[in-house]
Amino acid sequence: MKTRAAVATAAGKPLEIMEVNLDGPRAGEVLVEIKATGICHTDEFTLSGADPEGLFPAILGHEGAGVVVEVGEGATSLKPGDHVIPLYTPECRECEYCLNPKTNLCQAIRTTQGQGVMPDGTSRFSTLDGDPILHYMGCSTFSNHTVLPEIALAKVREDAPFDKICYIGCGVTTGIGAVINTAKVEIGSRAIVFGLGGIGLNVIQGLRLAGADQIVGVDLNPNKRAMAERFGMTDFVNPNEVDGDLVPYLVSLTKGGADYTFDATGNVQVMRAALESAHKGWGESIIIGVAPAGAEIATRPFQLVTGRVWKGTAFGGARGRTDVPRIVDWYMEGKIDIDPMITHTLTLDTINDGFDLMHEGKSIRSVVVY
Amino acid sequence: MKTRAAVATAAGKPLEIMEVNLDGPRAGEVLVEIKATGICHTDEFTLSGADPEGLFPAILGHEGAGVVVEVGEGATSLKPGDHVIPLYTPECRECEYCLNPKTNLCQAIRTTQGQGVMPDGTSRFSTLDGDPILHYMGCSTFSNHTVLPEIALAKVREDAPFDKICYIGCGVTTGIGAVINTAKVEIGSRAIVFGLGGIGLNVIQGLRLAGADQIVGVDLNPNKRAMAERFGMTDFVNPNEVDGDLVPYLVSLTKGGADYTFDATGNVQVMRAALESAHKGWGESIIIGVAPAGAEIATRPFQLVTGRVWKGTAFGGARGRTDVPRIVDWYMEGKIDIDPMITHTLTLDTINDGFDLMHEGKSIRSVVVY
Ligand SMILES: NC(=O)c1ccc[n+]([C@@H]2O[C@H](COP(=O)([O-])OP(=O)(O)OC[C@H]3O[C@@H](n4cnc5c(N)ncnc54)[C@H](O)[C@@H]3O)[C@@H](O)[C@H]2O)c1
Ligand SMILES: NC(=O)c1ccc[n+]([C@@H]2O[C@H](COP(=O)([O-])OP(=O)(O)OC[C@H]3O[C@@H](n4cnc5c(N)ncnc54)[C@H](O)[C@@H]3O)[C@@H](O)[C@H]2O)c1
Repeated sequence: MKTRAAVATAAGKPLEIMEVNLDGPRAGEVLVEIKATGICHTDEFTLSGADPEGLFPAILGHEGAGVVVEVGEGATSLKPGDHVIPLYTPECRECEYCLNPKTNLCQAIRTTQGQGVMPDGTSRFSTLDGDPILHYMGCSTFSNHTVLPEIALAKVREDAPFDKICYIGCGVTTGIGAVINTAKVEIGSRAIVFGLGGIGLNVIQGLRLAGADQIVGVDLNPNKRAMAERFGMTDFVNPNEVDGDLVPYLVSLTKGGADYTFDATGNVQVMRAALESAHKGWGESIIIGVAPAGAEIATRPFQLVTGRVWKGTAFGGARGRTDVPRIVDWYMEGKIDIDPMITHTLTLDTINDGFDLMHEGKSIRSVVVY
Repeated sequence: MKTRAAVATAAGKPLEIMEVNLDGPRAGEVLVEIKATGICHTDEFTLSGADPEGLFPAILGHEGAGVVVEVGEGATSLKPGDHVIPLYTPECRECEYCLNPKTNLCQAIRTTQGQGVMPDGTSRFSTLDGDPILHYMGCSTFSNHTVLPEIALAKVREDAPFDKICYIGCGVTTGIGAVINTAKVEIGSRAIVFGLGGIGLNVIQGLRLAGADQIVGVDLNPNKRAMAERFGMTDFVNPNEVDGDLVPYLVSLTKGGADYTFDATGNVQVMRAALESAHKGWGESIIIGVAPAGAEIATRPFQLVTGRVWKGTAFGGARGRTDVPRIVDWYMEGKIDIDPMITHTLTLDTINDGFDLMHEGKSIRSVVVY
């Protein structure tokens, strides 16, 4: 079939909107009509050329929601008409990783996914001239139709709006999951969130959901304050307005250091500050941000010997087929909020505006509605 | 009273054996006759002058065992004749830290302990001329008699030999505790221990006790192999004999990385290798070693984002009054072994030989018997 997609033809160039060919689903695969997709920093990271593993030409996008159109041979868990959210971290429920309760990093299709192809080693996308176009993070939600392995689709309720729940495909789950799956924050905790962008706001609402007593937000941009307060932030700190060092200031503000700290900036200096503002004896610091290629985190080992724990999280530690449908339920039940974070709604034709808005720091999340 | 002690008069000088004055126990304090004491790296770290917080003159030693001679006012948990092990990490059971199940770092007397004095701000030790001599780590077991706060003494069974169980006051508990309290290693785990000295050997026997399937030991010194095998090591790796990089070699040896890795070297490069040879998704790396002042650990944050956890441990995460008596029981019941690790027995007069043996790498543990 033919479908319309925004194609990343080369690093650093705007996406090109065009018709592409899409082959039907093979064994274990599913054809999905994407109804809406968010534009995330990871798409930008790849498009900009900063990601050393980025491949072109490719159809980016990994934060979508849509409807199953056709299922390939043996794909028995889904049927046409099912509403689904694509998963860049799949859940096969059979590999060594899925069978270990400590991780969500299903490895079933990791190699081919990293190569921009389906598990059989080929791409379903091609130009109208027949040249192959690569998949991206196993999702390619910047195409109106896409093919995914069955294990990379979460089935969700049918009354949930696509233009909001697409955000659960990455940002919402990453932020909330970092709190509840990775940190396992307890009621009454004190926490600090560094970076109040699309991820940080979801960490904040995860903390509110988990019953944290103090939720400190740290951002260089004072305009981030109002929205963060709306999601549950109790204290705002602008590092530029702190006299002296940030870490002792935060330790004092949290009465000895926070029980949990989160980096949602991707800056390795901030990651260090996050670790060191965790409480001696038991404070845990969770890295969510993705650092520039080659950047390293550092600290004195004494910070760990005296009881701090340094962790990271990918996709919020969530097992997508199991956890994503629950988060959609939470949204529908009003336990979490998404609508105010979707600051801009675009069409596929204006998708490049979404990257501009991100660069200008004007959007929290831009969503393309097909 | 007068007692005999080995006094550290200044950084870098041998200990001086002399008679010293010891005041009796004040409120909440206990006078203990030390029967035996180990010589640990931390004593050496301070004596050498490498510890920026080292104070002189002081009576070092923190790995002892002895008998209660006299109890001060209100010290009701002990009575003369009780057998005890001094605790450099006390357990008051009342402070914010003791009441938090996530930590063992009781803070009740931390400040005065760091200043080399008892909780009332004064020292019980002085020269025969009346000049004060400082306490060390709240223990000062290089004195035949010493005074400690009641909360810094673990009461142990009376049939246990002092010249062996003194080692439980630091090395044994640190190594075994890192495995069972900090890492909480599960049956069937794969583990790597870097450094097969007095601490590393106890990590190894902790791993055996916890039912680990694979226990890899890494040391530059091939002479460490035989003893480590005796304590449960299943594979030995000498980094000098590995072609290429150590980390991929260890990852392959442990079939994807170890579930738990431990640094017992104090070398920050080794700490990095330990983290990076932990399994993607769930591997935890525990820092036990104490690094030189100012040294920093580093890694790419991606190591944590993909599921590795970086932790540290002090005194093996043990709560001394609660856990140390149990470890003494384990020794007496034959669950753990200590005797082969006590390679040298000295007297107070020959205590400086113990430091020489350590520098030459000839001893695992030297113990002074009074
Ligand atoms: N681990 C994962 O699974 C995962 C998933 C999605 C995104 N991410 C990463 O999370 C990070 C945050 O993503 P986002 O969409 O929220 O980005 P964003 O740009 O919307 O937000 C980042 C925020 O950090 C603030 N900031 C930047 N430098 C700062 C500093 N030095 N001190 C304090 N605040 C600072 C910015 O002002 C901004 O508000 C990115 O690195 C992204 O790649 C990780
Ligand atoms: N965290 C705590 O509570 C605590 C308590 C006691 C001791 N320690 C620390 O634990 C560490 C180990 O103490 P120990 O008494 O076992 O010391 P040790 O000197 O007996 O043993 C260290 C071992 O590490 C080996 N080693 C050194 N460099 C190495 C390298 N690059 N690669 C592989 N092996 C290497 C040495 O050959 C030696 O066998 C020290 O740093 C000590 O200060 C920590």
